Amino acid sequence: MKIQAVKGTRDFYPPQMAVRNFIVDGWKTASIRNGFVEYDGPIFEHLQMYQIKSGEEIVEQLFNFEDRGGRHLAIRPEITPTLARMVNQQINALPRPIKWFSVPRLCRAERPQKGRLREFFQWNIDIIDVEDVLADAEVVYCSLDYLRSLGLTRNDVVAKISSRRLLAAVLKNIGIPEARLDTLYPILDKKPKIPAEAFVEMLEKEIDDSDTVGMIVKLMDVQSVDDIPDLVELNDEEQAALDELAQVFAYLKQMGVEEYCRFDMGIVRGLAYYTGMVFEIHDAAGELRAICGGGRYDNLLSDFGGPKVTATGMGMGDAVLEILLREKGLLTDESVPVQTLDYFVACLDADLFGKALKVTAALRQQGHSANLNYKTNALKKQMKAADAMNAAKCIIIGGELKESNQLVVKDMKTGEQELIDAMTFLK
Amino acid sequence: MKIQAVKGTRDFYPPQMAVRNFIVDGWKTASIRNGFVEYDGPIFEHLQMYQIKSGEEIVEQLFNFEDRGGRHLAIRPEITPTLARMVNQQINALPRPIKWFSVPRLCRAERPQKGRLREFFQWNIDIIDVEDVLADAEVVYCSLDYLRSLGLTRNDVVAKISSRRLLAAVLKNIGIPEARLDTLYPILDKKPKIPAEAFVEMLEKEIDDSDTVGMIVKLMDVQSVDDIPDLVELNDEEQAALDELAQVFAYLKQMGVEEYCRFDMGIVRGLAYYTGMVFEIHDAAGELRAICGGGRYDNLLSDFGGPKVTATGMGMGDAVLEILLREKGLLTDESVPVQTLDYFVACLDADLFGKALKVTAALRQQGHSANLNYKTNALKKQMKAADAMNAAKCIIIGGELKESNQLVVKDMKTGEQELIDAMTFLK
Repeated sequence: MKIQAVKGTRDFYPPQMAVRNFIVDGWKTASIRNGFVEYDGPIFEHLQMYQIKSGEEIVEQLFNFEDRGGRHLAIRPEITPTLARMVNQQINALPRPIKWFSVPRLCRAERPQKGRLREFFQWNIDIIDVEDVLADAEVVYCSLDYLRSLGLTRNDVVAKISSRRLLAAVLKNIGIPEARLDTLYPILDKKPKIPAEAFVEMLEKEIDDSDTVGMIVKLMDVQSVDDIPDLVELNDEEQAALDELAQVFAYLKQMGVEEYCRFDMGIVRGLAYYTGMVFEIHDAAGELRAICGGGRYDNLLSDFGGPKVTATGMGMGDAVLEILLREKGLLTDESVPVQTLDYFVACLDADLFGKALKVTAALRQQGHSANLNYKTNALKKQMKAADAMNAAKCIIIGGELKESNQLVVKDMKTGEQELIDAMTFLK
Repeated sequence: MKIQAVKGTRDFYPPQMAVRNFIVDGWKTASIRNGFVEYDGPIFEHLQMYQIKSGEEIVEQLFNFEDRGGRHLAIRPEITPTLARMVNQQINALPRPIKWFSVPRLCRAERPQKGRLREFFQWNIDIIDVEDVLADAEVVYCSLDYLRSLGLTRNDVVAKISSRRLLAAVLKNIGIPEARLDTLYPILDKKPKIPAEAFVEMLEKEIDDSDTVGMIVKLMDVQSVDDIPDLVELNDEEQAALDELAQVFAYLKQMGVEEYCRFDMGIVRGLAYYTGMVFEIHDAAGELRAICGGGRYDNLLSDFGGPKVTATGMGMGDAVLEILLREKGLLTDESVPVQTLDYFVACLDADLFGKALKVTAALRQQGHSANLNYKTNALKKQMKAADAMNAAKCIIIGGELKESNQLVVKDMKTGEQELIDAMTFLK
């Protein structure tokens, strides 16, 4: 019976696993460096949790099922609802600030395409209960800090930053009623992905007045905060939103990443739940989907039955990131070896096999990684095996042990050999 | 709307996550030290895969569902079927020996009880396509190597080792037909968990002859390989199986772990698929479920449509292990801190906050983990925050910076303070 993997899922053979570890370990290191602590939730949750955050449509994108207790469950498509649930449950006990990260495995029942898989890994960082936009700046900084540590420069990636608060204020200013905003956001979010005429057409379906549509088109092209006052006369709320956004940029400058960052009114994020700063990091060439995205969300915890607590965060998947790193030559099969070994133990004489086993065990107990060749075949074959495992050194057990109780230690890079007293390992 | 986690799943708040990382990182380190390379598969597979390995009953224990393409899928309850599928797919291309490990998240729709959860993590090591029982010994050794590295001694854990091949030969010798073996194994496996009379009763339901039942009861109590010839007259197959098992013990002795190991004919493992050496590691007091178990299986790859290739492996869950480590005092909340920090940056003057941000970013870029206090509140409060994050050092930004362009660096353990030139970080 020949069995296949499920369509759209990935098998991680050792070479693919090494790449996944390279990415996930990098995420963890950057998180810890930036003072975040790790959490995780279950792989499945009550289906309802995802409906609350994303509406009824989300069910179509979920792997959902009923358990024997009749509960409607779903494999998690994202971890933010879990985060909200967990923080709510311990809201009074958790030490502040809540700076948490996670690297969950997530599943979405989507049609697989470039940079989008049905099963993937996503880095999440969130800062909860910090009003100051310093938390927003920290989230953007940490994302860039990770990408920079991989060798990506300002020529490779750009952080496009905007503000939902500012956008909402300006849209209301030009006459869009508050109640229409949530239907408008997903359309505005589509702008960079569709032709200009299609964008205008979509807007015209929602908005009768063509002047307003023209104004929105102009607004979405604004590339500098300073240009906004030229388009609309700012009221207090708009000015406050603008000042807040300027403060995010000031913090990012102080942290030394301003060259990666720019304002882009076109960054909207489709989801209704953002309320403040929003951002996406893209490849500079603009050829791929966003590498990551996030922003401030003020209502999620209260939507999940908790108190009104502010939060800001970011999610970065592994798929687009891997494509970009490979394109830039920053991730190659050589840069992430499947295996490295401190010692490979080669035994040339079947009589000495027990000693070889003893040496291998001694190396491991000293904390070295070690493999023993399972057969006492020709030295050349064993050296080939040692090379395949990227062994740094090879211990050769043969005549020298019988003659003078010594072992040959060969440096696999230089080829140099030295003799050591066998008692080092054979006590 | 108050939302709960699904019954039987676990939330990993930072303290629980630290424990999980302690366990999983230890598994990974031990695997790499012993020359295994990591792989992983998808979180769900075709339902059929689990039916092939474990029969129709398994479906009851699975979280299974139908996707929109009408496929019958299940969240993985174990990773061995995935391993068999993956190895089969690349059987000719994979370099030998295949020494693989994985630390999958697994789900079983069981009633939660002590040491048994509906969602858990399991360490798996497998050696494929190595006939020599050295591979069996390596699997047992690697499991013990990990447990020993945690501080568990021979007084804490014991590896009970037997052989399915030997058991099958002896059972056939005393008159059990081959076809009855598969129904007998799960009964024999239950012996240590049920009263002696209940065990005999179960056997009597399967076997008419009371002499044979008596003989089986005697056999299952054998604690030394040498005692078997006293019970049954050995034929060639039995002798070969006995010699093979003796060789496993010889290898384990050469590797220096013989004091952890003993023969126990009562170790059967319920599953039909084992064909050679079988083993379980238990707490020495025998109060918990098995910490891990495994053995040789010769037919799984061919059952999954591949060639007949031998394999041997082990699985260890996190739940029983954690209980044992806590009981032995080898895992405490103090031994696995939620967070440690190289530097905590405290700013005492709002005017200097930009500088504090710069210092924090500089520390991070140098690879140090660093957190900046979000507020410029009293020093005492900030020191408390630094302590809560287990900061090794604290950089205090205050009057010294204004007066002499210096920063205070405080060692949080000794309390000692030194002044350093601010230019170290504020270039």
